[in-house]
Formats: sequence, structure tokens, C-alpha cells
Amino acid sequence: MDGTPSLALLTDLYQLTMASGYWKLGRGEQEAVFHLFFRKPPFAGGYAVAAGLRPAIDYLKNFRFDESDVDYLASLAGNDGQPLFDAGFLEHLRELRLKCDIDAMLEGTVAFAQQPLVRVRGPILHCQILETALLNIVNFQTLIATKAARISGATGGDPVLEFGLRRAQGVDGGLAASRAAYIGGCAATSNVLAGKQYGIPVKGTHAHSWVMSFDDETEAFDSYAEAMPNNCVFLVDTYDTLEGVRKAIEAGKRLRERGHEMVGIRLDSGDLAYLSIEARKLLDNGGFPDATIVASNDLDENVIESLKGQGAKVAVWGVGTKLATAYDQPALGGVYKLGAIKDSDGEWQPKLKLSEQSAKTTIPGVLQVRRFENETGLVGDMIYDETHGIDQRGIIVDVKDSNRRKRIPTGAAGSDLLVPVMRGGEFVLEQENIGDARDRAQRELGRLHPTVRRLLHPHEHPVGLDIGLHELREQMIREVRWDFGK
Amino acid sequence: MDGTPSLALLTDLYQLTMASGYWKLGRGEQEAVFHLFFRKPPFAGGYAVAAGLRPAIDYLKNFRFDESDVDYLASLAGNDGQPLFDAGFLEHLRELRLKCDIDAMLEGTVAFAQQPLVRVRGPILHCQILETALLNIVNFQTLIATKAARISGATGGDPVLEFGLRRAQGVDGGLAASRAAYIGGCAATSNVLAGKQYGIPVKGTHAHSWVMSFDDETEAFDSYAEAMPNNCVFLVDTYDTLEGVRKAIEAGKRLRERGHEMVGIRLDSGDLAYLSIEARKLLDNGGFPDATIVASNDLDENVIESLKGQGAKVAVWGVGTKLATAYDQPALGGVYKLGAIKDSDGEWQPKLKLSEQSAKTTIPGVLQVRRFENETGLVGDMIYDETHGIDQRGIIVDVKDSNRRKRIPTGAAGSDLLVPVMRGGEFVLEQENIGDARDRAQRELGRLHPTVRRLLHPHEHPVGLDIGLHELREQMIREVRWDFGK
Repeated sequence: MDGTPSLALLTDLYQLTMASGYWKLGRGEQEAVFHLFFRKPPFAGGYAVAAGLRPAIDYLKNFRFDESDVDYLASLAGNDGQPLFDAGFLEHLRELRLKCDIDAMLEGTVAFAQQPLVRVRGPILHCQILETALLNIVNFQTLIATKAARISGATGGDPVLEFGLRRAQGVDGGLAASRAAYIGGCAATSNVLAGKQYGIPVKGTHAHSWVMSFDDETEAFDSYAEAMPNNCVFLVDTYDTLEGVRKAIEAGKRLRERGHEMVGIRLDSGDLAYLSIEARKLLDNGGFPDATIVASNDLDENVIESLKGQGAKVAVWGVGTKLATAYDQPALGGVYKLGAIKDSDGEWQPKLKLSEQSAKTTIPGVLQVRRFENETGLVGDMIYDETHGIDQRGIIVDVKDSNRRKRIPTGAAGSDLLVPVMRGGEFVLEQENIGDARDRAQRELGRLHPTVRRLLHPHEHPVGLDIGLHELREQMIREVRWDFGK
Repeated sequence: MDGTPSLALLTDLYQLTMASGYWKLGRGEQEAVFHLFFRKPPFAGGYAVAAGLRPAIDYLKNFRFDESDVDYLASLAGNDGQPLFDAGFLEHLRELRLKCDIDAMLEGTVAFAQQPLVRVRGPILHCQILETALLNIVNFQTLIATKAARISGATGGDPVLEFGLRRAQGVDGGLAASRAAYIGGCAATSNVLAGKQYGIPVKGTHAHSWVMSFDDETEAFDSYAEAMPNNCVFLVDTYDTLEGVRKAIEAGKRLRERGHEMVGIRLDSGDLAYLSIEARKLLDNGGFPDATIVASNDLDENVIESLKGQGAKVAVWGVGTKLATAYDQPALGGVYKLGAIKDSDGEWQPKLKLSEQSAKTTIPGVLQVRRFENETGLVGDMIYDETHGIDQRGIIVDVKDSNRRKRIPTGAAGSDLLVPVMRGGEFVLEQENIGDARDRAQRELGRLHPTVRRLLHPHEHPVGLDIGLHELREQMIREVRWDFGK
């Protein structure tokens, strides 16, 4: 998004009405800290793969209310027909330059429920007006990177091609999905603009319409081979799949005589287990043991796992709709919640939201996540309050069930997952390329116990609150509850 | 998207490899016709609301391969490491100006399965390279407009506010969703940029973080009322909902003393039936019978229908994730299929794709949709081939079950739903504003039999092929099948 206009208005109106409120009360500069986190991993899985930081940084870099933004806001009216916003507040927005400190998980980091993926600290007015866009960007890219990791895990190392653009949710829905899918583990995309913008490998050959535009399939394959001899994956299911395979083999032989090798065939309908097994036999017997079978058609990690279990002879998996829209859970549900506010003495005061649902009770403080490992591998993650440090008992307590506790083994090495991105409005994180994020995801997924990566009812990686933070939170919950019980 | 760079590369790579193939074979200028349609209405419903034409036109207006696009394509290699594309083809792309004829349903038109929403006719190379972006834009906006129509239908006239930006699928996923939701029937959005760009009303007041940032709820409400007296909808569930309502009432009384009226309260968690009924009593007894109860929290058309059935006292419905991502079916599944090709004599030759699944068999021809009505209301829709005209028998035949037939009553008036958008690359459709599209949707939905709008197992509006077209298609299917049976 570099060089593009500011997306400062890409926000919910209430962020601006609250900002206006803080400004009017003279509280706009009061320091606050907000955390962006999710409450449950998506797809009933055991983890998520954090993504979206780079586009979030692009958004922050361009953040500015321009003249047309301010003019638009000036045109809005309240319920009495009077302007919704004061001229003074609008002037404040016009001159606003972000002064936040931002810390975040690097893209490709494996994340768990309740862990901040992004922490924004600074003037409450600044923190508030970033909420919606940060959620929009990080929620979606994390969702898709996670889906891609699940799908790539299910293929057992076979490459996955992301084919989702035509069904993606809008233009950027497609671009962002291609980007995040690559971080999560996909090998390539069909989306040419994503290839150009993000440096992702692109793949594609031909569609049914190519075959239909000729009088018969043989002519269609031969013509494609003539025109694009170094990119021949023949789509064989326009009329009758196995007949199509036979014709592809004949076309492949003619192509070979011209000094080129057919890459393979693609199946796009029907029973992919049966058809891939039969197609493999035909190809092997026809002199094309190295020809690849690409399969597509409403695939996701569960269908792929099932096809692998049935011995399907698919070597490359094209996954579109179910990946690019995260079909079975199309939103991550990440939230952005106030953790603490600095009082007039400069002390952080932790803040809590209860709501009517216990699962929505927040975690107070200025939070950081430390991941511990020892010679046996990862041992667990601790969410702790940076201003208090880690309690010397070295115990983590499950957020949902306080009787589930774990002592961090002595000698386990810990590293903090939130790294500095912005300090006082200046960027301090060196930009990494998308390949680094993809490598990190591969490495981190590989460090998880395989049962944590399981698609169904995964084992839970131990994550908990530092026991000191847990005790503070319990006390705060009781204080609020008792207050209302009075 | 006016004035933005071209999105010509927003396409699947295979559109360009096929285009390259057509060009190399000297067939790029051969005339073809493609139809964009869906096979089943989304959400197991009875209809869809067409949307996306205006952004599709913006895309077409900006369509051009610029230098950096061509340079990128020149950098791609085939399986032998040689360039994928010929320099001559890239030069062709650089100079390409669209020469298509495009016809489409106006936004807000009610559409049914198998009906073309967009028809693209022209040089096959041009038609092909538009496929992916047209699908991306029209699929998503039609999906969301339809979801919004279902939700707005379920509220029985209560306004629906679209709150989905933070969970939407990317930046444009959010903008496009806000736009389409308004066309489908929403009253306003929280998305400020959508308000600015599309002229949609925007709404919003404050979040939990506002309340949490004060020492207690009363101070929070009073402070908001002080700062934004003409925009007071108090969010009451930060700690204890009904206690929150009582505090809102007190704050409302103090606001009234200052000459302003509280707009209402918002519920965002817990049992919305129970809480809204109890909150209504408190408000009525507290002197605020006109205060509005806004509800949000994972709402969709089914939850709303249930809440209405339970007598919930909600007057305004805030719908976010489930609307902006079309949560229960996040992709429309629209396709773009070749219908016919002009032979060297200038005659249209209908084309058919069979595939392994009967449901994926296409409809051949240069298709148009005629909607018939008489004094009793809508009687049915006919898909017919424009080059052959309508068979004089005046019968429509169901695509899925050829024994379901209906005679169009004599005297029924018909109007064609595909209207000219582009002729030979020039735009011929006058641009309409988003309010016109929204009005059309309201009008058209109102003309449907109420049972067709039912959420569950809706009655089917009669749609079929002109019997002449049906017979041609049957014959073509048999010819292909017999050919393989030989």
C-alpha cells in the first residue's frame, strides 16, 4: 500500500466519536495500552499463524487525515441536525501524527488464544483510531495464513497452489489472501497481481473454455502445446476425464517429439481418488511416469487428508474458495481491548472488561508473551505484565480453567514474542521480505508437537497467565462483581 | 476505483497463458461470448440480489497493461527456464484496448440460478482476460447484497446497521461489503470510508473501551454525553447490563436537563431477548419510551428471526461479522463460462461443457433473461438465446429437471434483464447512484412472492430455459455423450 492514499477513515465511526470525546475532555493524550488478540484458534484447530504486520505497517506509514477526509467528517450531523464533530477536533485530526509505541509478533509466528499479536501503547486517542483497521488487516491475514498452514500440513509436503481469486471477498480480499496463504505455506498462487506485488511464484495453464473453444479436445491440447510448449498441464475433464487423459498422453508424445516435456494433467471434477489413481496408471503406462497430477475442485484440508488416506495419486493440490475465504470459518474474531491506562502519577492502572459472557472477560495489564523451550522442545507460553515482570514462582495458569497450571521447568530458555515495531511514531523494525515470514512459519510449525497441529481435536499447547497476573485479574473480577452485588 | 492504477494483472495466470495461446494461433480476435452466473442461490435461499456492476465498470475503465505489468510478465519462465510469454504477445497486451460488448443486470436486480448476471461478447482474448476480476467483484458484492436482503427481511422493517469492517476479509473486503450491504437493504454502516466513498449513511457512538477508560460507568456515560450530546447511544454491558441501563437512564435525565435527548442504549452480549425486554421496561418506566434499543453480537437473519419471535424489544439491529463475511456461505460460487463462438462464416456456434458432474453442464448460446409478469404479479423468468429468439411455444423448462415445465401465460409482459453496458469498448450505460440500486432491490424484493423470500426451504420462483434452447442443449449433450460412447 506504499504511496497510496491514507486509509485513516477506514474505521468504525465510533472510534472517531470516542476520539472526539477524549479530545473534548482533554484526555486525548492520556496514555493507554490496547492488545489485539483472538479468543479461540480458528477452524477448531490448535494454533494460528500470525500475519498482516507488513500491510499493517504500510497502513500506519500512510496514516493521515487529509483535507477530503476532514471535509467529509465535517459534513456529518448528530440527532439534532447539528454537526457531529467540533471544528477544533477536526483541526486536531488534520494535524495528528501518530505517536504510538507498537509491538507485534513477526509474521509467521505461531500464536495461541489470548496472546496479543499486536500491542499499541500511546495517547488513548491515537490507540483508539487505529483499532478497526488493525483488526481488519491482522484478523484476515492471520486467518488465511492459518488455513494455508492446515492445508499444507494435510498434503504431507506436496505443494499447494492457491487458486482463490475469483471467489475471494473483493479485490484486496484476493490479494491479501494470496499473500497470507504464501506465508502459511502455499507454494504459489494463480493471482498474477499478488505475484507482482509480493514476489510470490505464480502458476497456471488453461481452463475448460480453452478446450471448448476448439472442435475437439485433441486439437485443443495440441494447440496449447504448440503455443505454450514449456507450460503444459492439460485440463482433462471438459468432457470425459479418462478419455481426456488418453488424449493428453498422445498430445504429450507429440510434444516430446518437438523436444518439450508435458508437465502433467489437471483434474477438476468427479471422484479425485478414483480418477487420480486411474490417471496415474494411464500416464505411467503411456510413458509419462514423471508427469504430475494436479487436482482441484472444492478442496480443503479435510478433503485432502481423506484423499491422501485413500491413496489418491495427486502430487500438486490447487485450493481456491475454501482457502481464500477460509470457508468453514471466514472470520478470525480477533478483538482489540484496553489493557491499562496511565494515571496522573504516571503509573499504569490495569483495566478489565467483564461483559455478560465470561469468555469475553479481558486480561488487564501491559502484556507480553514469553515462549519457553528446553532440550525437549517447546514447554509453554506465558502471558505476563511487562510493568510487573514475571512472578518468581514461574507458574502459568490457564485462562479458561484456573485449576490447570504448569510450572515452567528451571533452565527453560524464554524469548518474548512481541518485538518493537514503532517507538513514538517512528518505525524501528527492519522490514523483512515475505520469504522470511514463510520460513519462520515453517520453522515454528515444525517445532510444535505434531498433536498440536492435528486437524481434529488437537492437543493444547500450554499457554497461561503468569500466576501473579492471574491473581491480580481474579481480584479485579471479584471487585467488579462484588461492587454490583452490593 | 476511478483514477486508480489498472488492475489488469488481477487475474489468474491461466487467463494470460490462454490469451497467449489464442494470440499465437492467430485466434485472439475470434468472437466469443461468456456468461457470468451462479448455480445455486446462496444461503440455501430462493434468490440473489445482483450487485457489483459499478465497481466492475470502474475496473473496466481502468483496464490497461502498463509498463510494469508487462515487465513483470516478461520475467516469468516456463518449465524449461525460458520466458513463458513471447515478446510479441507482451507487445500485444501493452497496446490492448478492450473492444467488448458487455450486458449486465443492473445492481439491485433480483437474480436466480443459471441466469447470466453479466454477458461479455467480443474477441475471445479480451473476454478471457476479464474473467477473474469480473468474478471476484460480482461474486462478492452479489453475495453480500443477498445476505443484507435476507437480514433486512428478517427484521420486519427495523433498520439494520452494518458493523462488519473489523472482521471483513481485507480492506476492500470491508469497503465492498459495506457498499453491497447498503444495496441489499441496510440502513447505514459503521465504516466511515465507505460512507465517504459511496455516500452511505454512517452510524456509531462508543465502545467498551470508552467505559473502561473511566473509573466507573456513570462517569463514562456523563462524559460521553458532555462531549457528544447529540449522538448518545450508551453501551450498557461493560460490567452488568441492567445495572448499565439504570445508569444510562440517569445519564439520560441529566442530558435532558441540558436540552438534549438520549438516542438510546446498545446491548452487545448476553441473552438479547431477556435483556431487551427488561431494558425496555426500565427505559419506559424511567421516562424514556422513545429511547431506541440497539442490539449487536453475532447476529444474522436466523438469530434475528428467532429474537423477533420471542418478542425481543430491539428496534435497531447491528450486524457485523455474519453479514460482512457472509459467514455461513462466504463465497457465491459464480462462474464465467463460454456460451458460443463465431465461426468463419460469422455464425454463432453454441458451446457446451459437460464435466464429470451434471450440475456443472453449461448452457450454450448467446443468452438473455426475460422476466414475465401479468396482473397477478411475476409469473416466471426465461433464459433464451438472443440469436435464435424465443420459441413460439412460449414454454420454460427447468434446468435441473426437464419434466418441470411452465407455459408463459398469454399476455404476460416480459422485460429483458441484461442491459447494454459497453459496446465495442465504449460505455453506453448511464451511471446510477447507489440509492437507485438500493431502491431497485427493495422494489424487486417486494414483487417476489413472500414464500420465495422465506429463509428456510423457500418456494422456487419459476425459472427455465426457453424450450427451443432446452431442446438444442439436450441434443448437444447427447452428441458429446454418444461421441464418447463410441
